[in-house]
Amino acid sequence: MPVTTDIGYPWISFTTDYGLDDGFVAACTGVIAGIAPATRVLDVTHTVPAQDIRHGATVLAHTAPYLPPAVHLAVVDPGVGTQRRGVVIVAGDSLLVGPDNGLLVPAAEALGGPRAAFTLNQPRFWLPTVTRTFHGRDLFAPVAAWLATGVEPRQVGSPLPVTELLRLPEPLVDVDADRVRAEVVTVDHFGNLQLAVAAHQVPWQPPTPLRLTCGGQHHHARLATTFADVGEGDLLALVDSAGYLALAVNGGSAASALGLRPGAVVHAEPAPGATQP
Amino acid sequence: MPVTTDIGYPWISFTTDYGLDDGFVAACTGVIAGIAPATRVLDVTHTVPAQDIRHGATVLAHTAPYLPPAVHLAVVDPGVGTQRRGVVIVAGDSLLVGPDNGLLVPAAEALGGPRAAFTLNQPRFWLPTVTRTFHGRDLFAPVAAWLATGVEPRQVGSPLPVTELLRLPEPLVDVDADRVRAEVVTVDHFGNLQLAVAAHQVPWQPPTPLRLTCGGQHHHARLATTFADVGEGDLLALVDSAGYLALAVNGGSAASALGLRPGAVVHAEPAPGATQP
Amino acid sequence: MPVTTDIGYPWISFTTDYGLDDGFVAACTGVIAGIAPATRVLDVTHTVPAQDIRHGATVLAHTAPYLPPAVHLAVVDPGVGTQRRGVVIVAGDSLLVGPDNGLLVPAAEALGGPRAAFTLNQPRFWLPTVTRTFHGRDLFAPVAAWLATGVEPRQVGSPLPVTELLRLPEPLVDVDADRVRAEVVTVDHFGNLQLAVAAHQVPWQPPTPLRLTCGGQHHHARLATTFADVGEGDLLALVDSAGYLALAVNGGSAASALGLRPGAVVHAEPAPGATQP
Repeated sequence: MPVTTDIGYPWISFTTDYGLDDGFVAACTGVIAGIAPATRVLDVTHTVPAQDIRHGATVLAHTAPYLPPAVHLAVVDPGVGTQRRGVVIVAGDSLLVGPDNGLLVPAAEALGGPRAAFTLNQPRFWLPTVTRTFHGRDLFAPVAAWLATGVEPRQVGSPLPVTELLRLPEPLVDVDADRVRAEVVTVDHFGNLQLAVAAHQVPWQPPTPLRLTCGGQHHHARLATTFADVGEGDLLALVDSAGYLALAVNGGSAASALGLRPGAVVHAEPAPGATQP
Repeated sequence: MPVTTDIGYPWISFTTDYGLDDGFVAACTGVIAGIAPATRVLDVTHTVPAQDIRHGATVLAHTAPYLPPAVHLAVVDPGVGTQRRGVVIVAGDSLLVGPDNGLLVPAAEALGGPRAAFTLNQPRFWLPTVTRTFHGRDLFAPVAAWLATGVEPRQVGSPLPVTELLRLPEPLVDVDADRVRAEVVTVDHFGNLQLAVAAHQVPWQPPTPLRLTCGGQHHHARLATTFADVGEGDLLALVDSAGYLALAVNGGSAASALGLRPGAVVHAEPAPGATQP
Repeated sequence: MPVTTDIGYPWISFTTDYGLDDGFVAACTGVIAGIAPATRVLDVTHTVPAQDIRHGATVLAHTAPYLPPAVHLAVVDPGVGTQRRGVVIVAGDSLLVGPDNGLLVPAAEALGGPRAAFTLNQPRFWLPTVTRTFHGRDLFAPVAAWLATGVEPRQVGSPLPVTELLRLPEPLVDVDADRVRAEVVTVDHFGNLQLAVAAHQVPWQPPTPLRLTCGGQHHHARLATTFADVGEGDLLALVDSAGYLALAVNGGSAASALGLRPGAVVHAEPAPGATQP
């Protein structure tokens, strides 16, 4: 199996729902420092909403392509202490370590697709005591650290066909020339609502005026290329920095303006009477 | 005095109630970088509730055992600018630096117990100007940085008997074979309520059904080993990852479900009619 | 032009309004790691209120003097994707990189004043694809990283007279021997209200009793040197750790007690009948 990762990694990226108020993140970082002192930890986020696997998966998938080759350690793990597997996935120039619950696969896809996977089952790479409630500290962080020092993925687990990795259900997206119907996948810090529509699927060009329908309400929005293309406080749609169609308000929050959350479905169509440019 | 810390430390851990919205943490980190550029700062948390010494002490005590040997810098300091002492404590392979207000002692105990302490009184290891409101930046951070470079604790202060270190009052805990009565010490990001009951003090074995009494209300909870041992939304008690008895809700927040905060007292006993396994 | 910055920087400080919930900060940090792997990123804050340029400018100006010589990367950028300039400013031993919207100038002043500036217009120092909504990741972070490796400011842009840098309006401050009238510039994590009055402008000495007037209400406060100079819960005024007059409550929040926010105007005068010490 051509797993060419025996040179180690200078970076471990780290994504969790642990929050920043306790010492959970620091405990994991400390465990890494003890095993792989030369490796640097690059925090992606630790404020994934508690146990929201899809949100964590989306943030990591959007971010990983901009990170250097790394061991990407991610833990959003409602099944901690049950029989759910822990895995390491080989993708692109990187490794991903965490629970096999769908969290890691979108990032693996964004990095070129999973090339190999292994079920973590070698306790010699774990802490001597593994609690049943904190596998991030006791199991995943030490495995990530050992991998960063150059231990090969096949040493930390048994081969797992990548087709057997657990995947999240695909979000709804239904596009034709006249209409887009898609699920809100994520909301960012600025209240921008990202839809499950990749840039190449968007059937219209800026500055097409759009009619949005969501929650039984109609809204007008202009398809634009940046926030300031519309007036202050006005609604717009644009391809966001991750390459997906998003709804935004210039100088405001689309999530607040539309009252939408992840999982909501939005219909978009050219505004009646509008002519495409 | 056998204080064998003259080799310096590659890590400074850092715990405060400064929050993340201002530049307070960065100013301290910058001061450290100027004095000890090779030392790396490992943030434990900076969102200790403002001036909540016990919470800061608890988080640091739970985290420090998982960190590499370090200078543990911690500042939760309602008495800044008064005559309260600043101290360095020698414990295990590490040092602790901060105000002598009880913040550091639990971590010192968790690292093996305080072996020596010194009252900080050597201004040559402080910034040239020490304000009366920001000793973290002006006094504690530079002292921690100098210690990390290899300056010995006895150089930065005068000996202080460890018996004279200020200690927080012990939280209430009263355990016998039939009943546990204990104070809630801390609430974590997931809403888990940690009680002042160490694992070895818990008189029952999972899956004993328990009756909890708090705030005049009764609740049923199962003594378990991980969250998923009970149904979604159900209450459980378990030994947490820090080694203490905690109350939790599978997929939810025990703090919300029970309406409890630190300082509240919880009674637990086997549920009437239950037979121990 | 004597721009002596060709030796590179071991530190990049980083200030944004990106929040910590998404991967925005990590994506920028990852881009930096790819270009300047030996450079360390020191986060100032990423929770500037969305698009609040003045708050970001104030935090960075208060913090930068305590940081080692660095490339100070700051992005609070409501005009992203419009024709607003990106700039690098040379000040003291440091560089500042970000949008030319007033964000960087106060820190440049705090570091000794801007000595030179350049409009960023050399795409070879940007990512190959520059989106119209995320210049932090695609343009400013890579420029900062190249500067950290030793690229000179004049290589990344065209000279811009420092007099043409956009500056924020000065906050209101009007001081005479009997009275201070000044704008609240910023509120910190503890609810301390910083006024636009530098220490040397304060016309009174502690412990002068003051009468504050704001929002049509009168309040009494003592001019003090630290929080504990007044009783628990009492209002005080003091020179804060950044060197400005601030209003505070010992063990509480002045922002809550007075109901004030940045932009509010406060009048202060010696309390009637008070005698200066």
